[in-house]
Amino acid sequence: MKTPLFRLRELIKENKLDAALISSPSNIVYLTNYSGFSKEEREAYLFITQNKQYILTDGRYSQAAKTLMSNFKLIEISSKFSFEKTIKQLIKRHRIKHLGFEGNNLTFLEHRNFKKYFNNIYHLSISSLRAIKEKEEIINIEKACELGDKTFNYILKKIKLGVSEKELTFEIEFFIKKVGADISFRPIVAFGKNSAIPHHQASDKRLTTKDKFVLLDFGVKLNSYCSDMTRTVFFGKPTPEQKRMYETVLASQSRALDLLNSLFVIHNSIPAKNIDKAARDYIISKGYKTIPHSVGHGIGIDVHETPHLSPKSKDILKEGMVFSIEPGIYIPGLGGIRVEDIIVLEESHLRLLTKSRRDCIVL
Amino acid sequence: MKTPLFRLRELIKENKLDAALISSPSNIVYLTNYSGFSKEEREAYLFITQNKQYILTDGRYSQAAKTLMSNFKLIEISSKFSFEKTIKQLIKRHRIKHLGFEGNNLTFLEHRNFKKYFNNIYHLSISSLRAIKEKEEIINIEKACELGDKTFNYILKKIKLGVSEKELTFEIEFFIKKVGADISFRPIVAFGKNSAIPHHQASDKRLTTKDKFVLLDFGVKLNSYCSDMTRTVFFGKPTPEQKRMYETVLASQSRALDLLNSLFVIHNSIPAKNIDKAARDYIISKGYKTIPHSVGHGIGIDVHETPHLSPKSKDILKEGMVFSIEPGIYIPGLGGIRVEDIIVLEESHLRLLTKSRRDCIVL
Repeated sequence: MKTPLFRLRELIKENKLDAALISSPSNIVYLTNYSGFSKEEREAYLFITQNKQYILTDGRYSQAAKTLMSNFKLIEISSKFSFEKTIKQLIKRHRIKHLGFEGNNLTFLEHRNFKKYFNNIYHLSISSLRAIKEKEEIINIEKACELGDKTFNYILKKIKLGVSEKELTFEIEFFIKKVGADISFRPIVAFGKNSAIPHHQASDKRLTTKDKFVLLDFGVKLNSYCSDMTRTVFFGKPTPEQKRMYETVLASQSRALDLLNSLFVIHNSIPAKNIDKAARDYIISKGYKTIPHSVGHGIGIDVHETPHLSPKSKDILKEGMVFSIEPGIYIPGLGGIRVEDIIVLEESHLRLLTKSRRDCIVL
Repeated sequence: MKTPLFRLRELIKENKLDAALISSPSNIVYLTNYSGFSKEEREAYLFITQNKQYILTDGRYSQAAKTLMSNFKLIEISSKFSFEKTIKQLIKRHRIKHLGFEGNNLTFLEHRNFKKYFNNIYHLSISSLRAIKEKEEIINIEKACELGDKTFNYILKKIKLGVSEKELTFEIEFFIKKVGADISFRPIVAFGKNSAIPHHQASDKRLTTKDKFVLLDFGVKLNSYCSDMTRTVFFGKPTPEQKRMYETVLASQSRALDLLNSLFVIHNSIPAKNIDKAARDYIISKGYKTIPHSVGHGIGIDVHETPHLSPKSKDILKEGMVFSIEPGIYIPGLGGIRVEDIIVLEESHLRLLTKSRRDCIVL
């Protein structure tokens, strides 16, 4: 097995760089296995050369760094010993001529400030690194998906007349956190018309017999890895039109999965946009509007990561990739249906990691 | 009352710009009142001129934009109608010559891409805008702090022999979410030695009689506004040294509050770093190491925002600002104490928004 650090060093070499400055919280999780840094604030950097690795963080985290990231050399940042000073010293000490940085993470101001004292910095894309998962990572995602399936079974029992969207999101969180896991994003629960908003924010709306649609989209985070799944169930018998919507979404997803499976056996690598197109075109062919989002996304430490299954994606689907397939139909004023599952590409076949039933459930 | 949009337009004018492109999720919340966009992914932009305001987002949010942000004109972004194309058109339509953008939010790559099709873009700092709070905002923070105080009372009853750190964080979340609010950050619960790590990640560690220190740091998010508070209580009678640590932290906080109050009466504006220094120096004068973090931070839509009360801060504390004062002492291998409260500066006096007791609690 190639460790994340080994992979990064290969990438640094391939890009003819001497070292890399890692700033994005999820890449820091990937490389250190420590997930305590904020996702919203800059609290740490990694500085990686071919034979040394450093973690730069402040006094709030120095104890954690020493015990939980002991294979990294800690450099404590403070108002007296700034990040800039540290980097300057490291560049000098290791005779760095060309340094990679995360151009899709460092802000304009951080980059500008950085360039003042070291000019030879180059954007290095790390996303390709995490797109192919190692076995252990797949096991983590699988476990998260399993807990997601259990959560779905649990929440089905809580869908009752008069329950509110917010109450159901609370129940989802409660169930997941009770067993020591975390949510991978704020759960989406949408009743009736609200389900026509693909990313509806759960409200105080209470379930009535008229609503029919109950869309549930949620994910688990376990050992730093995410799951993600969507099911849409009916509260009361759906109308023929609503039933047809459901069947179209399901058939669209099956199309994408079948195409993926058959192509993967032959080619081992498939343009992601072709799978997006298969699902999308099917829905359009049935007289519905195109899907207002991409058909799928990679998943791992982040709930959305490479590969992207969208019309303009240049990503290629390969063995070791884990991603969602999630077509949907949304009709403003009426409601929406989405079905989302997570699959992994393994040695010339695909395997579903989410296993919840996908047939039309009527409560 | 000046609305956020009015304030932003003043700022645009002051900076001799014609329009601003807003990208940071919390500034989007500030300007639109809508908090449904992801904090981790780029899902929307605002484009603000002196008399028009646009929201640029994709199909997942177009319904929400129409109903919840109806004072903004929606432009739907898709793979066919890209963000770049839209901005180009808006710049042309409104004859924009100089456009502001958030240099501390837009990434290096986003900025580079952006500059390709419009060269006259300039970093515009929005943080000053949100530092001074309007009455309504203060009321929101006050309500969040009130719920924080209630949470503290609730959690005190749950601190029992054998309870784990994770279980207590779960209880904190549970209590806050049960009433329909959210947490403003992942709660910090640290027992014994773990409390010496200022930002400890709650573990499975269970409380024993030897631990003594129980550090609780948590916040509430209500109507998009945050609270934040820290209390350290003792499980069992503290040793004289532990008691002295507690009293020193408390006295350090009082020093900072007293200084702030007395200076504010006279000057109306106080350099933030002076308050940091007052608390910090007191702790050092008692023979402890300096505080490994800043003494305080502004709070509002983000849990950490302007002003920053740190040794190198250039921020000036003024009427309408809401921020924390949170000195701490941390002794590796033994434990840590931190006490944190939120205050608001109002017409020549300060007012505490967190009201939980601060004396040494022994359980």
